[in-house]
Amino acid sequence: MVISVNDQTKVDIDAARARTRVNVSVVRDYLYGGREKWDIHTKLEGILSREPVFAKDKKDFLGRTGLYTRAVAITNRLFELEELHKWSSQETSEATSILFEVLPITLHTLAFEPVFKSQGSASLLARYQHLIANKGIQGCYLQTELGHGTNVSRLETTATYIAETEEFEIHSPTLTSSKWWIGGLGKTATHGVVQAKLILPGGKDVGPHLFFVQLRSLEDHSVLPGITLGDIGPKALGGMAATDNGFATFNRVRIPRENMLSKFAQVSEDGKYVQPPHSKLSYGGMLFIRSSMVTSAGWTVARAATISVRYTTVRRQGGEDRNGLERQVISYPSTYYRLLPILSHAYLFIQLGRRLTQAFQEMSSRLSTGDTSLLAEMHAITCGLKVLMSSTGVQDLETARRSMGGHGYSAFSGVGRLYADYLPSVTYEGDNFVLDGQVVRAALKSYRSLLSSKEPSASLLSPSTMYLRLLLNGPRGPPLVSSPSWSESAVVITMLEQRAALMVQEYARTIEEPDASVNQRLSKAVTEAFVAAQVGHMIDELKTLPAMERRVISDLYRLYLLTTAEAALVDLFSFGLICRDGASDPTRSLRLAISTLCAELLPDAIGLTDAFGFSDWALDSALGVHDGRVYEALWNRAQAEPLNRDDATPAYEDSIKPMLRRGQMAAGLIPSKL
Amino acid sequence: MVISVNDQTKVDIDAARARTRVNVSVVRDYLYGGREKWDIHTKLEGILSREPVFAKDKKDFLGRTGLYTRAVAITNRLFELEELHKWSSQETSEATSILFEVLPITLHTLAFEPVFKSQGSASLLARYQHLIANKGIQGCYLQTELGHGTNVSRLETTATYIAETEEFEIHSPTLTSSKWWIGGLGKTATHGVVQAKLILPGGKDVGPHLFFVQLRSLEDHSVLPGITLGDIGPKALGGMAATDNGFATFNRVRIPRENMLSKFAQVSEDGKYVQPPHSKLSYGGMLFIRSSMVTSAGWTVARAATISVRYTTVRRQGGEDRNGLERQVISYPSTYYRLLPILSHAYLFIQLGRRLTQAFQEMSSRLSTGDTSLLAEMHAITCGLKVLMSSTGVQDLETARRSMGGHGYSAFSGVGRLYADYLPSVTYEGDNFVLDGQVVRAALKSYRSLLSSKEPSASLLSPSTMYLRLLLNGPRGPPLVSSPSWSESAVVITMLEQRAALMVQEYARTIEEPDASVNQRLSKAVTEAFVAAQVGHMIDELKTLPAMERRVISDLYRLYLLTTAEAALVDLFSFGLICRDGASDPTRSLRLAISTLCAELLPDAIGLTDAFGFSDWALDSALGVHDGRVYEALWNRAQAEPLNRDDATPAYEDSIKPMLRRGQMAAGLIPSKL
Repeated sequence: MVISVNDQTKVDIDAARARTRVNVSVVRDYLYGGREKWDIHTKLEGILSREPVFAKDKKDFLGRTGLYTRAVAITNRLFELEELHKWSSQETSEATSILFEVLPITLHTLAFEPVFKSQGSASLLARYQHLIANKGIQGCYLQTELGHGTNVSRLETTATYIAETEEFEIHSPTLTSSKWWIGGLGKTATHGVVQAKLILPGGKDVGPHLFFVQLRSLEDHSVLPGITLGDIGPKALGGMAATDNGFATFNRVRIPRENMLSKFAQVSEDGKYVQPPHSKLSYGGMLFIRSSMVTSAGWTVARAATISVRYTTVRRQGGEDRNGLERQVISYPSTYYRLLPILSHAYLFIQLGRRLTQAFQEMSSRLSTGDTSLLAEMHAITCGLKVLMSSTGVQDLETARRSMGGHGYSAFSGVGRLYADYLPSVTYEGDNFVLDGQVVRAALKSYRSLLSSKEPSASLLSPSTMYLRLLLNGPRGPPLVSSPSWSESAVVITMLEQRAALMVQEYARTIEEPDASVNQRLSKAVTEAFVAAQVGHMIDELKTLPAMERRVISDLYRLYLLTTAEAALVDLFSFGLICRDGASDPTRSLRLAISTLCAELLPDAIGLTDAFGFSDWALDSALGVHDGRVYEALWNRAQAEPLNRDDATPAYEDSIKPMLRRGQMAAGLIPSKL
Repeated sequence: MVISVNDQTKVDIDAARARTRVNVSVVRDYLYGGREKWDIHTKLEGILSREPVFAKDKKDFLGRTGLYTRAVAITNRLFELEELHKWSSQETSEATSILFEVLPITLHTLAFEPVFKSQGSASLLARYQHLIANKGIQGCYLQTELGHGTNVSRLETTATYIAETEEFEIHSPTLTSSKWWIGGLGKTATHGVVQAKLILPGGKDVGPHLFFVQLRSLEDHSVLPGITLGDIGPKALGGMAATDNGFATFNRVRIPRENMLSKFAQVSEDGKYVQPPHSKLSYGGMLFIRSSMVTSAGWTVARAATISVRYTTVRRQGGEDRNGLERQVISYPSTYYRLLPILSHAYLFIQLGRRLTQAFQEMSSRLSTGDTSLLAEMHAITCGLKVLMSSTGVQDLETARRSMGGHGYSAFSGVGRLYADYLPSVTYEGDNFVLDGQVVRAALKSYRSLLSSKEPSASLLSPSTMYLRLLLNGPRGPPLVSSPSWSESAVVITMLEQRAALMVQEYARTIEEPDASVNQRLSKAVTEAFVAAQVGHMIDELKTLPAMERRVISDLYRLYLLTTAEAALVDLFSFGLICRDGASDPTRSLRLAISTLCAELLPDAIGLTDAFGFSDWALDSALGVHDGRVYEALWNRAQAEPLNRDDATPAYEDSIKPMLRRGQMAAGLIPSKL
């Protein structure tokens, strides 16, 4: 019996599931951090997926206004459900992440509320915190301006203290001082925290501070006098379309003195400035967002991995396999060599994110008592990881999309949407190229402080700089190796740590004459050394899993180490960590080790992606459907395209018909004769 | 006097223009291939930019239906202008490329018409060619199916010959045989060339052939009986939104025997198959599209280079320069190290495209006389270049966008649009990963044929395989070099050729045990060797230019060579073409050479992009405006965002107000008391 190409898809994905060696629910518990978490996830998704407002099937056909309208309707319903089901704040947060929608509320929750709570005075909190927690007002965080982003010290908006009336006057003195890019500002927020230069009586500028400002009337949402605001327009690639990133200018807008967020710095009634006890106490917010970006990178890449692994499992193309069918696309080395590393990234980022969240909580609780000892380490780690995860994540999404060939370019594949929305992560919360510089500075500082200490020893090092211990054994690094044992994780981890250590050393030596890309290379090397060491710990911790799951997941982590080493080959050569010796070429042995490892992992690819636990509703992809019937899914979605309502669109009468008629006449024909 | 951040932008770009050493019009003539070409360009753009239908300012706010409607209106007006101004076909083609719009007509011109003309019988041509040339009918080219793309031999659509009525019956037997992705099919085309398996009486399948089929009525555009067709829906990232890529299924649709495109293969009246004399004669079309892709890659990258160089020249950020202003973003090594190579690619691709077009015309004229001697060479070159240019081009667009930080993510930057539309070039006209395999096969064949010839010599080699000559001097390659003369182009070119030669040799040696990414690496190495040799010729040909222009453009080409060598460092190490020797590290000397070269080119960056000759209308970018006033441009565009029509959108009443009220009540407050 010949099975149709369409029916074969189901056969193929069923066979792939049957071949899987791991127990999917064991792996899923590992990813979710325990069965209870998965049970909560299931319960919440059951509620969410039944809500008509949350349906995803028309999304690809909506313009920006439609997407924004849908997003605020979703937000409203989400908080109704929160009340109805009496969700804890953790459950609401989990429900929001299950929804996986771009929502204008995001910056209220992620930036406005934490900043307000951590820096508002006790009296301001007493007045507003319940209202904020209950979304009785909608907040945004106005920092970036049209003319300035990264360099906060150059922001132009001013807040001038008027002692006579005990007020601040918020003012935008120039076009370029317009607040710009502010999430939720354009059409949603009623209030905002404005970053502005504080000007004291007499004109002294004491730099940027935060001020709580009402933007819109709570009666009818009209913009308050003196304020001009709106949406900044569409984003590249149609990304983040549902969020109303906004602009605002202030024309001498007065706010009461109490509205300065004054927990760490104040202006007295008569206009005296009171210094903050520790200026770094206010850094917590940015670190929180950056550390949460690691986890979200993991789950975003997990989506693309699921879609691309499923589609390339059922898509057949090219030469014949042993059954006379065309080969499954995932069976080509050039495909699985691209997709399995992506899968390994998703696992790694999710677990790294969990560790980072724990570390952040530890730091936060110390910070709340004024203990800043963990701040520098947390800053260094989150900078480096933010760069590495977001750059890798963006690249992985496109690699996954491209692996799906032509249909990967359909909006219905769902990966384009992921990419467009995730893309700005390389720029926001610190442009990656700027953060690279901070990672390099922190590494250099650690290097110099280690070498200048009286008794240099590993005990002086933190997790983020532990690789520097390898410099303590004298100036000469390890011997040249032409055939490294790529199969031993410890060898590869040490090699990546040595590369980072030698690169910092080299950087310090040549600092007067740097090349143009050294910050990028060094930041990457340093962060990869840290991550490699973490991967070593993660492999150790797999001991609690059953043997098969332990083996497969540790293979996945080994694949990360090997592909990271492959991408670092130039450094490994140039720092003399490997060399070619006659017929022994370490690049070839490494690449063969990667191929072998991929081939071993291949039978579990479907199981490892099933373990992410995405339902068809959650994944929203015609190419990633659980039952493999991708062609039916594409066909059905295309039928809903609005252009298909009628045979001839209005554009026919207006433009096509005149063009055809003109051409027919020019060719000396009248249509009825054709 | 303090100049505002906004006014400073104009000052900065004027200063950059004043610093430029090259004569912009000399360089522009070089890029356009002569002053006459530029004059024609100017004349045509003058006409086009005055047409209201061609205005670009509302594009970012339109949904798919709006963009499609606009695109057919543009098409209609374009051909009215052609008539009005009596443009030659070359002028129309130039006008189309100046417009730089995604148009549903593209595949009529690029695929349908050439295939019809080159493969239709004399009688079919007599009947339809005037109609086609005058757009009296609109054509599309129906090859790809839902279930099959690259592997044409597996297409499922059938064309069964019915001897009784001398007709073919076009039929879609399965869901997956639906034609899919067909440009212009969804809502525009009236006719199409359908690729279908030809089934002879008795049931013999003689493989895919081409058939001319009417799809829609010329009276009212209604779809003809037996045919189901429509638009396949939106594309990823909102790309190619104005084109109606379509689907179609055929339910036993009859067409006359004459409608088979039968210049090279026929079915006689009684159902006998007449073999084509040379099956390869039909390959010309694909080669034409691929070779034209090199030129278009160049001009697309040129746009992104212009926008990003202009914006990073006027954007200031970070540390202070000697005037106490923040530094221009382009002055950071991490910025110019990213942007100047992109500029070099644009120049290179444009010149390579010109050479390729000439080579294609030579091949075509020989092909029309039955001489296929240049076909294999042209195939090998266009495969490799298509992969390299499209992969590089896509990456360059994103690099340019990212270099612009936050504002680079605004749709108004214009680079997102370029990216979304250009992205599928890595997949269409042969998926790059599949084409890599063809490049590798061609290289291996040349290698084996060279070595197995009685007297192996360079005279047996074509331009695309000339690098293999370096294997003729015996098995041992060149000596290890720890400090190569990176400043000598010839040294770098030879190094890139040696790398390709040694990699082919190594591939042949290890062919039984390839690693997973070898096709990609080898294809790249082989094509880069060819391109490097071409670059050598291009540098020689600069002799006709004045000294300064010659020096600057040859520096630009040298930058291409050096950055290509940097990306090839792993291969250069692993094939023993370079090595580290004590303190002498070839990676460091190369990177310093790149930094130095970039710093030398920097003063001419604005002049070299001005030389592309893009007007503000053509570039359509708020960040790429000629006068540098980027902040005003962003502000003005944002005001037109449809969401800004009213303070409160309809979503306020429906969703935001209920949410705020609920929150206010939960917090125990009534709004009037706030």
